[in-house]
Amino acid sequence: MIKIGIVGYGNLGKGVEQSISKQPDMEVYGVFSRRDPKTVKTAGSDVYHFDNILDHKGKIDVLVLCGSSEKDLRSQSPQLAEHFNLVDSFDMHALILDHVGKVNVVAEANKTTALVSVGWDPGIFSLQKTIMDAILPDGKTSSFWGPGISQGHSDVASRVNGVVVAKNYSIPNEDNVNDFRDHKEIDPALSHHKEVYVVAEDGADHSKIEEEIKNIPHYFKGGKTIVKFISQEEMTKDHSEWAQGGRVIRAAKTSDDYSHTVEFSVKLDSNPEFTSTVLVAYARAVHNMHQRDEYGAFTALDVRGRDLSSKTRDQLIKEML
Amino acid sequence: MIKIGIVGYGNLGKGVEQSISKQPDMEVYGVFSRRDPKTVKTAGSDVYHFDNILDHKGKIDVLVLCGSSEKDLRSQSPQLAEHFNLVDSFDMHALILDHVGKVNVVAEANKTTALVSVGWDPGIFSLQKTIMDAILPDGKTSSFWGPGISQGHSDVASRVNGVVVAKNYSIPNEDNVNDFRDHKEIDPALSHHKEVYVVAEDGADHSKIEEEIKNIPHYFKGGKTIVKFISQEEMTKDHSEWAQGGRVIRAAKTSDDYSHTVEFSVKLDSNPEFTSTVLVAYARAVHNMHQRDEYGAFTALDVRGRDLSSKTRDQLIKEML
Repeated sequence: MIKIGIVGYGNLGKGVEQSISKQPDMEVYGVFSRRDPKTVKTAGSDVYHFDNILDHKGKIDVLVLCGSSEKDLRSQSPQLAEHFNLVDSFDMHALILDHVGKVNVVAEANKTTALVSVGWDPGIFSLQKTIMDAILPDGKTSSFWGPGISQGHSDVASRVNGVVVAKNYSIPNEDNVNDFRDHKEIDPALSHHKEVYVVAEDGADHSKIEEEIKNIPHYFKGGKTIVKFISQEEMTKDHSEWAQGGRVIRAAKTSDDYSHTVEFSVKLDSNPEFTSTVLVAYARAVHNMHQRDEYGAFTALDVRGRDLSSKTRDQLIKEML
Repeated sequence: MIKIGIVGYGNLGKGVEQSISKQPDMEVYGVFSRRDPKTVKTAGSDVYHFDNILDHKGKIDVLVLCGSSEKDLRSQSPQLAEHFNLVDSFDMHALILDHVGKVNVVAEANKTTALVSVGWDPGIFSLQKTIMDAILPDGKTSSFWGPGISQGHSDVASRVNGVVVAKNYSIPNEDNVNDFRDHKEIDPALSHHKEVYVVAEDGADHSKIEEEIKNIPHYFKGGKTIVKFISQEEMTKDHSEWAQGGRVIRAAKTSDDYSHTVEFSVKLDSNPEFTSTVLVAYARAVHNMHQRDEYGAFTALDVRGRDLSSKTRDQLIKEML
């Protein structure tokens, strides 16, 4: 059994614990939390304080880091890669190359294996875009997100001063989706807009919050965003689910006469549970790569499909090919 | 530049030549044909007789085999793997494990790299099914083909005694597609039917041809097939295009409350040109794997996404993640 350590126990950490229960070859070693372990109620996993994680070195095959990209992973992944194999879901797109580099230096020096920026986007979608671009070089790729809640965007908006909680919806423009599939020109700036529902603290300056959210770099700045202030009651009633969807489409031609459209899509009842189950499959790949002495920092583009699976190679050839 | 040898110059071989013209890092070394080279008109590539292919050993980075699975590849791939790196599109699903094994023995002994059963199904679809199955273990996968012409099925039907030419259409049942997406039970036996259009030789026994086509193992036997006899004029007028489509869908749940649907689809104006361009990207992967001393027979499940691309790793991380 592959022993997994879960670092952080929010939506993502809970999803990882849940996902491992469905995997035949993996088990939870324990949850590591910054909270008092006695106060963390898991679905059955042991809980340890994060500060003591080094006491568990050598007993865990792979750590799955379930913290926030901005607050946790930027520093946590390079630090933990000194002692553990790990997978993280670092999703600040513009900073991923830098993150890979920082984790790689530590992982190579300490002979550990780290897979960073895993999830569906970045992650599975990145892989799909790479395959599409490679097999159909003469074409264009577009990604469409939603309709649904984007967790990363909701988290950063929730951390704005004066905000109690915020949820961000990405809304795709279906006309753009269909035009793109049909090889017509589209304006990508009109492919989505964002709607952020905000519960503000009493007396907070709404227009200041709105300005601040709209200008968060890497997440909101440069796009069309509508900010709506609502009560805590409305938030709980109408915006508690984490459904999400997304499509990546390549429209391309192989010759003057022939065009092709390739599309990958996900329709998710729970974005965090889906991201978690992706992280868990990639944790298996980390384990497999480490067993083969493949050290350093990797992304989803460096992983062989079969390393994600619990099935043997012969079984995969029989079932999948 | 990666030098590619094209073995066979039918629809697939022509598509490979066309696809390489769109790749920045590859060039055609030459076409190898069983016909008299003087009679083979290419889009510009040199033509050599297949019997002399060993004269070109050491000058070609990867051979792309463009023959028929049944007639050519079963023997050609194990033979050529002694001398060359290669990629083939062997698509007789039930025999792939055996094929991998035979090619592997030769490739390992001779330190060559062979990627077999590449195309969209088997190939890209196999990879998608593997990823979906690994990340969502609690679910079901279904593939739907068409509406469109299936080349492998058309080829084997065309080789039946008394047949001048045959074209096979796979027709999906859209009700089954939608029910499957919605996590409802479907009967896979009702997901498709096949329609084979046949031009028969004068005086041929139509009912014998029909029986024979319906019973071709691995291709038609066990499914619902309608055989229609038409004139050569009708065939040329109505059935000369090679459009095809396909979808692979996984419907799964991560917990009692949450279900997810993941889908990969292709809509192709020309099935052979698309299969060719897939073969060419995987030929690049063969070259990259061989440069790293990865010898033996592999499938699409053994290939890292980034090995398919002409772009550098840093460029891919910036563009795709």
